[in-house]
Formats: sequence, C-alpha cells, structure tokens
Amino acid sequence: MRYDVAIIGSGPGGLSAAINAKIRNKNIIVFGNSNLSEKVVKAPKINNYLGFYDINGENLKNMFKSHIDKMGIEINEERVNNVYAMGDYFSIMVNEKMYEASTVILATGVEYTKPIKGEEEFVGKGVGYCATCDASLYKGKKVAIVGYNSEAEEEANFLMEIASKVYYIPMYKNEYDVDENIEIIKDIPIEVQGDTKANKLVLRNTDLDVDGIFFIKNSISPKYLVPGLEVEDGHIKVDRNMKTNINGCFAAGDCVGKPYQYIKAAGEGQVAALNAVSYLDKK
Amino acid sequence: MRYDVAIIGSGPGGLSAAINAKIRNKNIIVFGNSNLSEKVVKAPKINNYLGFYDINGENLKNMFKSHIDKMGIEINEERVNNVYAMGDYFSIMVNEKMYEASTVILATGVEYTKPIKGEEEFVGKGVGYCATCDASLYKGKKVAIVGYNSEAEEEANFLMEIASKVYYIPMYKNEYDVDENIEIIKDIPIEVQGDTKANKLVLRNTDLDVDGIFFIKNSISPKYLVPGLEVEDGHIKVDRNMKTNINGCFAAGDCVGKPYQYIKAAGEGQVAALNAVSYLDKK
Ligand SMILES: Cc1cc2nc3c(=O)[nH]c(=O)nc-3n(C[C@H](O)[C@H](O)[C@H](O)COP(=O)(O)OP(=O)(O)OC[C@H]3O[C@@H](n4cnc5c(N)ncnc54)[C@H](O)[C@@H]3O)c2cc1C
Ligand SMILES: Cc1cc2nc3c(=O)[nH]c(=O)nc-3n(C[C@H](O)[C@H](O)[C@H](O)COP(=O)(O)OP(=O)(O)OC[C@H]3O[C@@H](n4cnc5c(N)ncnc54)[C@H](O)[C@@H]3O)c2cc1C
Repeated sequence: MRYDVAIIGSGPGGLSAAINAKIRNKNIIVFGNSNLSEKVVKAPKINNYLGFYDINGENLKNMFKSHIDKMGIEINEERVNNVYAMGDYFSIMVNEKMYEASTVILATGVEYTKPIKGEEEFVGKGVGYCATCDASLYKGKKVAIVGYNSEAEEEANFLMEIASKVYYIPMYKNEYDVDENIEIIKDIPIEVQGDTKANKLVLRNTDLDVDGIFFIKNSISPKYLVPGLEVEDGHIKVDRNMKTNINGCFAAGDCVGKPYQYIKAAGEGQVAALNAVSYLDKK
Repeated sequence: MRYDVAIIGSGPGGLSAAINAKIRNKNIIVFGNSNLSEKVVKAPKINNYLGFYDINGENLKNMFKSHIDKMGIEINEERVNNVYAMGDYFSIMVNEKMYEASTVILATGVEYTKPIKGEEEFVGKGVGYCATCDASLYKGKKVAIVGYNSEAEEEANFLMEIASKVYYIPMYKNEYDVDENIEIIKDIPIEVQGDTKANKLVLRNTDLDVDGIFFIKNSISPKYLVPGLEVEDGHIKVDRNMKTNINGCFAAGDCVGKPYQYIKAAGEGQVAALNAVSYLDKK
C-alpha cells in the first residue's frame, strides 16, 4: 500500500500538516511519539500560541491530542531512519520495515546537541545514527552507543544480541533499562578517532576501542535522514511553499529554520500539507 | 510619541504579531476592528486550526479576543489610509490624524473584489480609495462613491458636507444610513472612463458624469496603502523572515499570499513580529 502523504514528526508542525492533509481526503501516515513532542509537553507556560493564553505544555499537548483523536488521526510510534526519493514516490525506512508514500513532509524538529569532534567526519565509516539499521555490520564486534534519550536503550539491547561487546554511554539521567551484559559508562564523549574507519571513542575519563559508534539522538540531521536533501546552515532549505529541493518532499517547523516556535511550525505544516495536496492532485 | 511596532489589521495575522511583539516588551499599536475579522467571525465551522476542532468562527474569535484582552492589547478602531516610509520610522495616516512607528507589520488580509475596468489606470487621477483623505479636492464638485461595506456610508456623509453632489452605489444589501442629499443608486459599476482624469462612471444601466470616484473596500491594495511597497501578483512580496522590500516593514497573512488560512496567517504574524523585534534591537 502506498500512502499519499507521509508525515515525519508529531510536533505542532507535523500535526498541523496531518489535519490539513486529512481534511483534503488524503491517505496519510504520521510517524512520531504518542506523547507528540517533548518540546510541547515540557513547556512550563505558553503565551504566544494565538487562542491559548497562559497554558502549560501538557495542556496544549492535550488540546492537540484531542484534535487529532477527533479526526481519527493516529500516530505511528516508529522512528524513521531514512527516506529515499525513488522518483515518483518515497521509500521510508523504519529499521527492517519499509513504507511507501507519494509525498513526504519532514517535521522532525531540531536537535540541539552539537556533533562531537570527528563524529560527522566518520559517518558511514564506523559512525551511525541507527544501530538497528546497521546491526548486521557489527556481528561479533565491539560497539559504543551514545544515548541521548531512553529510546536508545532499545537499540543497545538489540545490538547486544549481535555484537560481542556493547558500551552504553547515557547522556541523560534516569534508570537505565538495558541488558545486564551491556557495560554502562557514565562519562562525556569528546571525540571520535580513527584512520580510514572510526576505531576509538575518546571520553573525558577513558578511551574505548571499538569497531562502531552510534549516536542516538532525538532527531537526526536532515541530510542523513534524506540523502540528497538541500540543507543550509543546518536547516532544510525550503521556498515560501515549504517545498524542498526534492520533488514531492516538503518540510515544516523547527527543521526549516528559526524562530523555533509552535504556531510558526503549525502554520508551516499547513502550508506544506496544502502544497503536497496540490502536488498530488496535479500528478 | 513613537510606537515600536504598528500592526495594521486585526485578523489572526495581526493578532499573532501583536501578542508576540508585546511578549517581547515592545510598545505596540494595533489598527483594526473590535470584531477582529469578518473572515473569522463568519466562518461556519473550522477544523484546521491546530488545537481547536469543530469550532465556529464566532467562538474562535472569542478565544482570540480573550487572549489579547488578558494581555492588555487593545484594538484601535481606525482605518489606516496610508503608510509612508520616512527613513528610520513610518508615518501612519488615519484621515487627518498621524501616528508614528519605528516598524510596521501589514496584516490587512485580501480583498476579493477585483478592480473594475479603468479603476487602476485612474488611481490618483480622479479615482481614490479614501474619500475623507482626498475630500478637499472635491469642494463643490460631483463625486461617486462605490461602497463595498457599510463603513463607506460614513465616508459618503463626510463628502456630502463638501461636494456639490454625491452618488452612493452600495455593493451590499442593507439599510443605508446616508445623508438625505446623497443619491443612492442601486446598480453595478462596469468601467471608469476619462481622458487625463476620470470623468465618468459607467454602470450597467446608467452613466454618471463625475469629477471623482471612490471605491471603499474592506482592504485596499497594498501598493496604494504603502507607496513603494513591492507587490507580486497582487500579494506583498516577502522573504522567509516576512520582510518586505522596505526596511522595517514586515507583512503576514493573506496579504502575502496563499493559502488563505488562519494558522498560516498566525504563524507568519509571529515570524513578522519576532523579526521586527530583532530589527528594533539592532537599531
Ligand atoms: C522547554 C521548552 C519550552 C518552549 N516554550 C515555547 C513557547 O512558550 N512558545 C513557543 O512558541 N515555542 C516554545 N518552544 C519551542 C517549540 O517547542 C518548538 O519550536 C516546536 O516544538 C517545534 O515544533 P516542530 O513540530 O517543528 O518540532 P518538535 O516539536 O520538535 O517535534 C518533532 C517531533 O518529531 C519527532 N521525530 C523527529 N525525528 C523523527 C524520526 N526520524 N522519526 C519519527 N519521529 C521523529 C520527534 O520525536 C518529535 O516528537 C519551547 C521549547 C522547549 C524545549
Ligand atoms: C466564510 C469564510 C470561512 C473561512 N473558513 C476558514 C477555515 O475554516 N479555516 C481557515 O484556515 N481559514 C478560513 N478562512 C480564511 C481565513 O479567513 C483567512 O485566511 C484569514 O482570516 C486571514 O487572516 P489575516 O489576518 O491575513 O486577514 P483577515 O482575517 O482578513 O484580517 C484583516 C483585518 O485587517 C483589517 N484591515 C485591513 N486593512 C486595514 C486598514 N487599512 N486599517 C485598519 N484595518 C485594516 C480588516 O478590516 C480585517 O479585520 C475563511 C474565510 C471566510 C471568508
């Protein structure tokens, strides 16, 4: 089955895209979290979303949730690892699964975490952002996973079934629900080192000799998510219709640039959806 | 007194600009209607404003009104006739009154009424959009006023104090509250004719020989509102920061282009306001 519109992200940008595409009778799929967006839920007090004054993030999330529930829109709780433009459709990779859609709307938000030294240089050469995708490469090998959120624990557990050794470096405070064979290291990653391939993760207090290093972040850089996507200063390049450089691929919200704000993201999600709809209708 | 930000228009675009500029502690003035926007109030059912599902226009207006009330934002119920860029500030003309502001945000919406034949050709040569502004030119003369809304009645009455003859051509159904000396003509305007100046308004059933013709619309074309403003296909040209071609002048909402939708307008109003704020802070 091929969807009309695949929306990646369940913050205000993605949700606004979803309701607008659905109102236009398009067959949609939304990837994200049942909690919608951490950046909504955690806001203590919001005054700048027209129509709601002095609301907290939890309540704003509830209003969003109720809106999509009433429209029968469900969130597919899966992380998209890659989106490939195939010509007249897109392949959307979720670990070993694949979805197809005629158009894609990227509303992935931004990751504030800066890459560490050497990280970007070794991407694809021992550094990755999706452990489950690349797991087969590390059969019987040593791997480090830097986890920026608790979802990374699942990836670590999965890798442990294949790799000979897994180090888990959590970048958040929590209980860590990981396999007992995984070695948890509480330290700060400083640099990725290597020759033709990465082979060492330098931490503040120790070094780890490994064959692969994964950084599991809230949102991956758009240029790794969608190969071929034009990115400018870390943001997806769009025109006033929220079109990217790839035909049929639109973007909205924080991922396209500042200001980082809810209603700006929601307005852009609407524009992206309506332009995706007219792109579909012209086909 | 000079305002930091003058916002022209009280639809979702203008209101979102207002709350965002106010949150940033700017001294603002908002021009518009106490009813906020006809295009909000009259909507029978709105499903595409994220956070509100199945709300009618009257209720959405009430949510907007309550938001600005709680923030102490008032709407100045005056129509802006012209905005002049004076270098480092703007002069905002309201009939005989003048306001000053360091930045301007245009959120005037769009007027669906197409100009009639000859109308644009004779602007400034016998055709105008603000009767009260140009009244002095028509002392003892004959004038036709094409009124697209009941606010035009006031302009007609004012002109009647000066002109020798006023024809009033209402384009809406209503009671007409005009001076008894004004001749009401129920007919459809077809064309403005003239030589170097307009001198005839051709209606479907009759012709009027006049010295001046005013078209009083809900919103005037941005290029007449702000001389020097760059307009493209009838919309104000803006970049992704909602900047126009005039320094310090921003725009948002329907007036900058399609899709014509509430949350798109609100998102753009926010972006316009935050960029006006950073423009002010850099000064
Ligand atoms: C504490 C805090 C307070 C804030 N307060 C305000 C405020 O008062 N007013 C205001 O206007 N803004 C505020 N913001 C900013 C605002 O949160 C963001 O601008 C807004 O959430 C951006 O919306 P978005 O839809 O672009 O992305 P996000 O809200 O970041 O949503 C993106 C979603 O996409 C998901 N996602 C990303 N990549 C993938 C993938 N590959 N597969 C599946 N899902 C994916 C993410 O998990 C996330 O759920 C605040 C932010 C924070 C952190
Ligand atoms: C019947 C109807 C139903 C609609 N339903 C929907 C819907 O369901 N969902 C949706 O998203 N959109 C809907 N729309 C479209 C939506 O109304 C517009 O896109 C939106 O109102 C645009 O907002 P805005 O702030 O740009 O301008 P507007 O809402 O048009 O507001 C502009 C305001 O500025 C004032 N103004 C203009 N010029 C001046 C001046 N010179 N001086 C002072 N004040 C001035 C005007 O009087 C007006 O109050 C609907 C429109 C209509 C007519």
